[in-house]
Amino acid sequence: MNAYMVFYILGHVLRIEGALMLLPSLVGWIYGENQGFVFLILAVSIFALGFLLSLKKPKDTTFYLKEGCVITALSWIVMSFFGALPFYISGEIPSMLDAFFETVSGFTTTGASILSDVESLCHATQFWRCFTHWIGGMGVLVFLLAIIPMSGGSNINLMRAESPGPSVGKLVPKLRQSAALLYLIYFFLTSLEVLFLVCGRMPVFDSICTSFATAGTGGFGVYRDSLASQTPYIQWVATIFMILFGVNFNFYFFLLYRHIRKAAKMTEIRAYFVVVLASTLVIAANIYHQVSGIGAAIRHSGFQVASIMTTTGFASTDFNQWPEPSRVILVVLMFIGACAGSTGGGIKVSRFMILIRSIGKELKSYVYPKSVSKITMDGSPVEHEIVRSVNVYFITFFILFTASVFIVSFDNKGLITSFTAVAATINNIGPGLELAGPTQNYASFSASAKFTMIFDMLAGRLELFPMLMLFNPKLYVTKPLFSRKTK
Amino acid sequence: MNAYMVFYILGHVLRIEGALMLLPSLVGWIYGENQGFVFLILAVSIFALGFLLSLKKPKDTTFYLKEGCVITALSWIVMSFFGALPFYISGEIPSMLDAFFETVSGFTTTGASILSDVESLCHATQFWRCFTHWIGGMGVLVFLLAIIPMSGGSNINLMRAESPGPSVGKLVPKLRQSAALLYLIYFFLTSLEVLFLVCGRMPVFDSICTSFATAGTGGFGVYRDSLASQTPYIQWVATIFMILFGVNFNFYFFLLYRHIRKAAKMTEIRAYFVVVLASTLVIAANIYHQVSGIGAAIRHSGFQVASIMTTTGFASTDFNQWPEPSRVILVVLMFIGACAGSTGGGIKVSRFMILIRSIGKELKSYVYPKSVSKITMDGSPVEHEIVRSVNVYFITFFILFTASVFIVSFDNKGLITSFTAVAATINNIGPGLELAGPTQNYASFSASAKFTMIFDMLAGRLELFPMLMLFNPKLYVTKPLFSRKTK
Repeated sequence: MNAYMVFYILGHVLRIEGALMLLPSLVGWIYGENQGFVFLILAVSIFALGFLLSLKKPKDTTFYLKEGCVITALSWIVMSFFGALPFYISGEIPSMLDAFFETVSGFTTTGASILSDVESLCHATQFWRCFTHWIGGMGVLVFLLAIIPMSGGSNINLMRAESPGPSVGKLVPKLRQSAALLYLIYFFLTSLEVLFLVCGRMPVFDSICTSFATAGTGGFGVYRDSLASQTPYIQWVATIFMILFGVNFNFYFFLLYRHIRKAAKMTEIRAYFVVVLASTLVIAANIYHQVSGIGAAIRHSGFQVASIMTTTGFASTDFNQWPEPSRVILVVLMFIGACAGSTGGGIKVSRFMILIRSIGKELKSYVYPKSVSKITMDGSPVEHEIVRSVNVYFITFFILFTASVFIVSFDNKGLITSFTAVAATINNIGPGLELAGPTQNYASFSASAKFTMIFDMLAGRLELFPMLMLFNPKLYVTKPLFSRKTK
Repeated sequence: MNAYMVFYILGHVLRIEGALMLLPSLVGWIYGENQGFVFLILAVSIFALGFLLSLKKPKDTTFYLKEGCVITALSWIVMSFFGALPFYISGEIPSMLDAFFETVSGFTTTGASILSDVESLCHATQFWRCFTHWIGGMGVLVFLLAIIPMSGGSNINLMRAESPGPSVGKLVPKLRQSAALLYLIYFFLTSLEVLFLVCGRMPVFDSICTSFATAGTGGFGVYRDSLASQTPYIQWVATIFMILFGVNFNFYFFLLYRHIRKAAKMTEIRAYFVVVLASTLVIAANIYHQVSGIGAAIRHSGFQVASIMTTTGFASTDFNQWPEPSRVILVVLMFIGACAGSTGGGIKVSRFMILIRSIGKELKSYVYPKSVSKITMDGSPVEHEIVRSVNVYFITFFILFTASVFIVSFDNKGLITSFTAVAATINNIGPGLELAGPTQNYASFSASAKFTMIFDMLAGRLELFPMLMLFNPKLYVTKPLFSRKTK
């Protein structure tokens, strides 16, 4: 394994994190908070550490998929560790484990909090907490790709390890420009949401934080009750932007380059909207008797569907009180998740489409045993290799999920809590049901449960394999000559 | 589709069912119960109907996998319908839907009951109820294979559709003899259990019924509290026989032919015993404080693990009262299920082994991208086609499972009840947790929930695709010339 390169990239990641911490420091300075100094000192220290690590560029900058995985997993862990320090140092989160949980939850855009009262945090901390969502949503390494030149093929291994979804094929040519453009679209949409929220008379600071959380499909908010006490206008704005950030960013790419036909052909997007719409209508009908009027039923239903399916995790009402069919739909949406190539988590719409189409193919083969058919997506056949990896993903996901539920169940909080707490963390959503519901928090879980969920959040955000790779003993067998030649 | 052949086989199935109904009629005669006459009249009528249907042998006896599926699905539905009549006519189950549910639950070896008091049933009915488990355990069509000669290739399509597990390859040569031998082993093991139970001073009638239910891994009993008030000896006998009936019958085949090395090579059997043992120990440690003494902890733990993993569904205690980690293990065991080629249900141990090995392969490919490795089972590589079908099975299973939970959730009985009721029926177990727990019954579910679970029981027993095929519109497109030529 190219360990020099691992440290070199880690150094760059820390440099970026240090630089980004200047923003909350600025916020602290604006509001005259001491916490601003904490951020400033940390920013400088983290940057310096990163500078030292990335001082010497390795001679051999090539690396393969395994290094890509290790770099990605370690980057996210290290980044979360340093990102947790402001919470811990200020004493706003007295336990380092809790602070780490909160930061992992931030960077992975989960939004599961251990805080019972976010409104008591100072502005700088609140800003940093929501900002982690924004950073994590698009991914730090993708950002890195836009700024560091790497030898051919290496960057794609990094992107493959960090980007959500079964395939990043479409973005490959001119990777650096693509990465930069992705960030541009991301920045533009976020700013647009801030604008809309400010127009709805939400304070500017709150608008920025809320937009960060929406953009990253995170779910940390600045209010104790998420967005429950906001006006219907603001709830609608959040709903629409959550849905927009759950869309595959390739779609915006195509629109930007005026490839309208290509954009219209994206079956994943169509399926995504069909699921959002259908779920909203069914839930609205199901909760109609609990709320006042059809308008409120559709608003709350649409908000929660968008929030859960895009794995944001905001709440406009306590959906844990909803009737059972609605709760089942929400749990199902937790697993489906957003589109591939969006900032959202979950298993992803396109994976489910491939899975469902493979069932159709199987049934067809019973009737016409000799027919040879391939699964298609967006009009072209899906490579066997991708179908296989989707299958393996699905199975790995369920095994990891089950093992996690088992560990969390030792807390004896009830099966629904254990089940949905793991579902809400591994799918990067935030709130689950019962004791992990939208009006509750994760503080009362045991340390082993928290570690499990920290692992799940990272595994879910990084598409499982980078995190699981850390446990692959083959990785640590140093056969430098052999491994150099395998590619 | 060769519709003549479908009716012809259905006729044979009804003839067998009619003949088998003479047994409960005999039981009724022995105990001097009027219900004996009901069984006698039904036996004669069903046999006569079957005789009429199978009077004329079709000229073309060939059929393909799709006919195999349709015949299998229809046979089981028709058989359950006629099998439900004795319950309904005698008035012991006043609702025909409930009687149908109970009979499907019997034939599919589920053991989910709608009865609150089985002890009030007359002997003939009790016998028939448990006997359905025994019939369904090995499969009626397998029985048919042993007695009707069919043109080459047709019978394997039938066997493929009815037999549990990913592959029936090993039994293929000399199919008729194999089927007969399977029934012989089955009969022998059942008799052995009767003997052991009688030695433990269980009445002969109760021993026979209990053995039927164990052999079919069904779970219907003759006592209100399942086996909770029986002696430890009887509970141990039941535990051991449940485990034996959950073993792949190929194992007994090999032993019988003294292929000791082949038998020892069966990794599925080893994995099965490892899971049983490990789960028993973990649960015993977890429930230790609830029961008196280490002996009782291991007995109850072993009994429930055997009962749930082999999908029998007997209970020696109310495991719904156990601590959460134990309940989670039981729920996981529900899905794993028994060995392929046993009478048990669930997803099957061998499928899980293939799935887990494909994850290992995936992780390996991250480290050595160019290495080409195949998954192996019992020392030989697994065909790509089988890996693919296992993947599709797993995904289809979860989609059907989720859809069923959604429908059942309209009963608003709580998520744990809905989830485990579906898990217990689709995996052919019987009791779930909470309101579907071992001390409860399924009578209070709504008609739509019952229909869903009836479908799930059949789908689970017939390995999904035969039941799903009934919904395949392509099946009903009659292209006789084309479909004849596709093979």
